[in-house]
Amino acid sequence: MRIAEIGEFGLISKIATLIDEKGDRQSTARRDLLLGIGDDAAAWKSPGGIELITTDILVEGVHFDFSYTGWHDLGWKAIAINISDISSMGGKPQYALVSLALPGRREVGDILEMYAGMLDLANACGIAIAGGNISASEKVVINITLTGLAGREMMTRSSARPGEQVAVFGYPGLSAAGRKVLSQFISTDADALQLFKKAHLHPNPAFTAGPLLAGLGVKTAIDISDGLISDLTHICEASHLSATLRLDDLPVHPSLTRYFGRESVKMVLAGGEDYELLITAGRDVMEHVSQSLNPPPVIIGEITDGTPGSISLLDGAGNPVHIDFSGWDHYKHPD
Amino acid sequence: MRIAEIGEFGLISKIATLIDEKGDRQSTARRDLLLGIGDDAAAWKSPGGIELITTDILVEGVHFDFSYTGWHDLGWKAIAINISDISSMGGKPQYALVSLALPGRREVGDILEMYAGMLDLANACGIAIAGGNISASEKVVINITLTGLAGREMMTRSSARPGEQVAVFGYPGLSAAGRKVLSQFISTDADALQLFKKAHLHPNPAFTAGPLLAGLGVKTAIDISDGLISDLTHICEASHLSATLRLDDLPVHPSLTRYFGRESVKMVLAGGEDYELLITAGRDVMEHVSQSLNPPPVIIGEITDGTPGSISLLDGAGNPVHIDFSGWDHYKHPD
Repeated sequence: MRIAEIGEFGLISKIATLIDEKGDRQSTARRDLLLGIGDDAAAWKSPGGIELITTDILVEGVHFDFSYTGWHDLGWKAIAINISDISSMGGKPQYALVSLALPGRREVGDILEMYAGMLDLANACGIAIAGGNISASEKVVINITLTGLAGREMMTRSSARPGEQVAVFGYPGLSAAGRKVLSQFISTDADALQLFKKAHLHPNPAFTAGPLLAGLGVKTAIDISDGLISDLTHICEASHLSATLRLDDLPVHPSLTRYFGRESVKMVLAGGEDYELLITAGRDVMEHVSQSLNPPPVIIGEITDGTPGSISLLDGAGNPVHIDFSGWDHYKHPD
Repeated sequence: MRIAEIGEFGLISKIATLIDEKGDRQSTARRDLLLGIGDDAAAWKSPGGIELITTDILVEGVHFDFSYTGWHDLGWKAIAINISDISSMGGKPQYALVSLALPGRREVGDILEMYAGMLDLANACGIAIAGGNISASEKVVINITLTGLAGREMMTRSSARPGEQVAVFGYPGLSAAGRKVLSQFISTDADALQLFKKAHLHPNPAFTAGPLLAGLGVKTAIDISDGLISDLTHICEASHLSATLRLDDLPVHPSLTRYFGRESVKMVLAGGEDYELLITAGRDVMEHVSQSLNPPPVIIGEITDGTPGSISLLDGAGNPVHIDFSGWDHYKHPD
């Protein structure tokens, strides 16, 4: 069986099972482990609190295209996507390790420009770049590992409860719009181009929101990297629950509607790489969140007690709608 | 200027300078950082002791060749090289993150076989595989991040002192012999083949030795990944000192001499990927080490007060010898 046949998530599931069965459960490390494979970051108990660690690999030609991606933006985004993972656990980022595979023909100045992009965001978020590794390669590969610290309150994917509201921050779909506009040469007005490009090439990850939400009592969060539906599915699978989403309540940015028409809803639901937080919480906590964060999240649905991992889409009249698409899987591209 | 012109270490030096100058020195993370770029692992203070973290990227066609590398061995080695980095700091490994870029045509069974290799070594060393990341790619790329904990005594590259002895464990050069035998189809007897192959494909990293050495008072250690000379140069540069090595005292395995003749000394000095520890210490501590560890290290030279980073090779009569080679740089292959 080839990887392409079962996809990224099929493979991850098999790996998680193997590690669970074959990994030594008696080691101190394993006993202190709070969250292993299957969340945005791993977490374990330490004398200083809950330690978090996440890692993300970016491959030239898969995650970025040098025909429209600058090195500064690339460095920024490589750090941003990891901050988003730490924040979605309710943590504060601390140390980054940068592992690079680079062709020898690449310019030293470009690599330093990429580090300048990393440092701009790292400095803004109190992250120290603490080390790394460099190797030769035919394509540029960037692997960032980021550590973080959570207080006593950590957010996970597995803690959703039936009846909780589902809410999202920001405007999902703008990053997908950026990818399309840049790769397919779609022409837009300057403001929309700027909006789409920024979302795709230079995202501002939720940095302070994660710890704030955890402090307000939110137990369940994920960052939208694979796509809204796909990431809500991750929550539902981990929590053994289902969810409904009301299409009329989705935050669709007017520029998305203007340039992508009917496709825009699909982009909001399955675009991916948004790095906005998706949370679930009971009404009281959600009201508290809406009063405390500016801009507040948009409530788009509910967690329900149905088939684990299934998401129902409802139209304005509350009738089920079928949309044919899936989220972002590295082996099953939605585009 | 292209990367190939300044090499891996030239690029690392420029990156380290940029991070030192542009990185925010006021952040809590930066203030707690004990060791950033330029050692085998990064280190920072935490309430539980000194935390260590290291990362290593392995790229198909650069670090391994599927024509003679099995998936189980690949997984084992990917973990081994990181354990070696943690051990060379005097630390005990804890958590591993596995970041993979894999072509969709690869077999799921092969990937699980690689994880079985990782788990065999992880279980033996008390490491929990805590998470990771999977992406598509044209070539197989494996990035492992490993955390560790050191007690109050940490070993570094920068703590060597003039007059200290230089000693090495094991038989450097056997991994290079394995690479040559496997890639150039050199024929040897079965025992030598087994010895060379194991050193290259299935190395046993120093796991307990690192913390033991740190406890015995050794302050300076590095693992031989780039090559003995190259890694001793790293120590000398970081310590702003020089060193002498006596060629007659080098541990050259008889099988290496048998199959590689005069080339064998060069392989001991510059072969790379040995994952044996190289240490420096004063006579008292070194005697203590020799009595405590079995097999003991071999004393091969001294740290001297000369041009920072320069290594002098001496023949049996104590006369300087010139050998034309360098260590392993990803952009300047010695082979």
